[in-house]
Amino acid sequence: MTGTLSPELERIVAAAAAAAPAYAATAPADRARAIVAVADALEGARSALVEIGARETGLTEARLNGEVTRTAVQLRLFADTLVAGAHLDVRIDPADPDFALGVRPDLRRLLIPLGPVINFSASNFPFAFSVLGGDSAAALAAGCPLIVKAHSGHPELSDATARVAIDALAAAGMPEGVFYLIHGREAGVAVLQDPRIKAGSFTGSIGVGRLLADIAAARPAPIPFFGELGSVNPVFVTAAAVAEHGEAIAAGYVASVSGSAGQLCTKPGFVFVPEGGALEAGIAAAAAGTPEHRLLDPRISRSYEERRSTILGTPGVRAVVEGGIRFDEQGHGWATPTIVTVSLADFRAGHAGLIHEAFGPLSILVEVPEGTDLAALVPEFFEGNLSGTLHLGAAEAAGTAEHVDELRALVAALSQQVGRVLFDGWSTGVAVTPAQQHGGPWPATSNDSSTSVGTAAITRFLRPVAYQNAPAAFLPEALRDDNPLGVPQTISPAGESQGWGGRWR
Amino acid sequence: MTGTLSPELERIVAAAAAAAPAYAATAPADRARAIVAVADALEGARSALVEIGARETGLTEARLNGEVTRTAVQLRLFADTLVAGAHLDVRIDPADPDFALGVRPDLRRLLIPLGPVINFSASNFPFAFSVLGGDSAAALAAGCPLIVKAHSGHPELSDATARVAIDALAAAGMPEGVFYLIHGREAGVAVLQDPRIKAGSFTGSIGVGRLLADIAAARPAPIPFFGELGSVNPVFVTAAAVAEHGEAIAAGYVASVSGSAGQLCTKPGFVFVPEGGALEAGIAAAAAGTPEHRLLDPRISRSYEERRSTILGTPGVRAVVEGGIRFDEQGHGWATPTIVTVSLADFRAGHAGLIHEAFGPLSILVEVPEGTDLAALVPEFFEGNLSGTLHLGAAEAAGTAEHVDELRALVAALSQQVGRVLFDGWSTGVAVTPAQQHGGPWPATSNDSSTSVGTAAITRFLRPVAYQNAPAAFLPEALRDDNPLGVPQTISPAGESQGWGGRWR
Repeated sequence: MTGTLSPELERIVAAAAAAAPAYAATAPADRARAIVAVADALEGARSALVEIGARETGLTEARLNGEVTRTAVQLRLFADTLVAGAHLDVRIDPADPDFALGVRPDLRRLLIPLGPVINFSASNFPFAFSVLGGDSAAALAAGCPLIVKAHSGHPELSDATARVAIDALAAAGMPEGVFYLIHGREAGVAVLQDPRIKAGSFTGSIGVGRLLADIAAARPAPIPFFGELGSVNPVFVTAAAVAEHGEAIAAGYVASVSGSAGQLCTKPGFVFVPEGGALEAGIAAAAAGTPEHRLLDPRISRSYEERRSTILGTPGVRAVVEGGIRFDEQGHGWATPTIVTVSLADFRAGHAGLIHEAFGPLSILVEVPEGTDLAALVPEFFEGNLSGTLHLGAAEAAGTAEHVDELRALVAALSQQVGRVLFDGWSTGVAVTPAQQHGGPWPATSNDSSTSVGTAAITRFLRPVAYQNAPAAFLPEALRDDNPLGVPQTISPAGESQGWGGRWR
Repeated sequence: MTGTLSPELERIVAAAAAAAPAYAATAPADRARAIVAVADALEGARSALVEIGARETGLTEARLNGEVTRTAVQLRLFADTLVAGAHLDVRIDPADPDFALGVRPDLRRLLIPLGPVINFSASNFPFAFSVLGGDSAAALAAGCPLIVKAHSGHPELSDATARVAIDALAAAGMPEGVFYLIHGREAGVAVLQDPRIKAGSFTGSIGVGRLLADIAAARPAPIPFFGELGSVNPVFVTAAAVAEHGEAIAAGYVASVSGSAGQLCTKPGFVFVPEGGALEAGIAAAAAGTPEHRLLDPRISRSYEERRSTILGTPGVRAVVEGGIRFDEQGHGWATPTIVTVSLADFRAGHAGLIHEAFGPLSILVEVPEGTDLAALVPEFFEGNLSGTLHLGAAEAAGTAEHVDELRALVAALSQQVGRVLFDGWSTGVAVTPAQQHGGPWPATSNDSSTSVGTAAITRFLRPVAYQNAPAAFLPEALRDDNPLGVPQTISPAGESQGWGGRWR
């Protein structure tokens, strides 16, 4: 991998780099209008796009229609976010002659766009984590030109979606060069290595994510690389939860494991339950009649079949829901959910073979003896994860149960290891909101300083710059005293620096 | 480098890891009190510490006393910052049944401490960027146990400072294991590679910084590494500025280049001035009689002597202030400032040999023909830098000069390349304030998402976690509705999601 660009890629990267200053300088309201126009155009092209997507991915039209809506709403939410301007983190320190360390100059700081970004899109969300997905929305809202590397699982849909974006951005008056689509891993790597590219984002496997993160880090000038990688999303169900709402838990679990054929990074992979199998009948009943679902592509299908066999063949593992996978003549696998159970002792013994993500509709119940230190299981078995979940009984949730301190310790252990801690719900279904966190320590992500879902993702493509004693004529609008953009400004008034820290004596 | 720890290092890293949950859980006011107690203890030990520092580094007692004050104020400022709680970026999305994408769960997000941090301290600021410097203050304030790798240039001072910190933290009731000092690069690398360490920080050379950044990125579980590396800090002086206040510019320039013998990462390395040498007499007059100053150590002294000879020997380079360096019997170099001038054409021709940082009291004037496109010089000659500076005339600053657009283009070019853009001042002297930005694109830093001076640095040692539908009994205090800590909470009320983006049509 040399980083040398083909003439076509050179043209694209040069155009993105040339567009960067003009795009960064667009008025926030104009950029917001352009992004909303893209969202509207996406919904306008909905039926044609969903038809291509269903053919290329095997996902249902209902699911894909929902994803189009989600993707459009996501774009509009980022449009609002960029105009509100809180993400600029504007800080103003007026000059202070009485500053504790001598005269303080006038200092004003904000976040500015990094420059051209490459986004490697995902296979399993052909809209929401693909050409116009969350990473793309965040980069465009931040003010960065974007080059999207299409996922090979839906090339035609990627082209059609990119066409929607390019046309809508041009019609909205955005600079040429703000949006490109490229195909092929080699092309993606070459662009990632180009010095004009200032950040990368990715959703996919740990293996590919690590490869790309290493490339980004090894460049002569390293750049941030935000990879959202693998996750197995441990769940803990207490005895009280089983007793009080076991049936609902069983139904929710099966729905979460089988939705989209389990091909979601937030699928609950391991559920720690009390010994005794009290949930098993409910799980079997809920799973009965789940229709078979095509997996995304033949490679994923074969990989799933292999993982499933390994897990079923591990000593101590017993099927609660057998499920299965059959292959059609195109090599596509069609799967029904498989749910197995194993004792904690056998899980501990077979853990090396069981712990890795099974991408598809399979999940593992781990039966835990009464009195087990649940908090200790988290670091024993898990690295970083996108989510961790607890199902509690009513007294436990109210904090009045006798063992509430043990449960608090479990919550603390999970928050050390995951990006999102859920109570009495399922981790699939990630709301796009300001407070969402879709991330977590390695290997859930390659960079855990941000999120890949929700508006906080916009800061991934920004960096801080301060202006010292700048005349008003040279200040960015967001930093001016008259604040023409109406963004939040955190002002540290002169004279307040004298008492620093004194009250903590 | 295997990452295997000696028994002593194993004890230290294990203790830091064991202390992490307890330290993260300390009440903010208690942590603030402990940090202020450290600041007070540092000032209490001032005279003994300054005596050791002066002997080990050759820096003057006046400078070191100022640095102790700065370091103590910095600690107290971080104490205030951590209690104020804005750095937690608390976001609360109450549950919303009418959410645009279906029922929105209750989501609450904040930033939590990363865990144990290793900080590699600097040679040139034995207090402010060393054992209790800005990186250390930020990590301790964030709630992360800290292991400091001492700089080999002031080992005795490092030990004495660490003793002050350890005693004060213990007396303030902080958990054991929150603070350690280690010596030796091998030990530092081994700790950086340990999986229990969650972030690294560094101030020093590009070469060492790159080595450490690569180690952090290559770990089985990569971690963020915040290196503040090299910078040459370009300055542009317009003809109007020379005409209106040339004498003050000359005096300020010489003071900025010669202070601390030029051993500052913010020293102005290149000053672009109008052709004609109008500043030269003023510079020579200001430099006359500058006393010689010992450089930090023999290695830096030899390296400076070599850089100085290379620069003086480059075709077209002429000394404005000759200066010099002599060596004492211990091998320490004693330098007086050297300021040279070169035409833009000769600079362009000899640029490969001239452009790298000369760590010491040397700076280069570049004489620019009238009509030169100044903005174009920035990307032609410079990579990322900590700062860039403009000196303007009054009409230019007011924005009424005819060529104001050219100056705006220069400001835009600088802000693409630097962390701080200054007007009519000098980049040495970095105020410790909320709006300060001490960073910049590679190679100014290895990670340009944050700052190494000012309170914004605290976010480097934090990561986000969200809680979904958490019962109040399990929420961190900062996320609770009754907000017992009184931290800023950004609330996205239910019902407001319906209109997203709609007004941008």
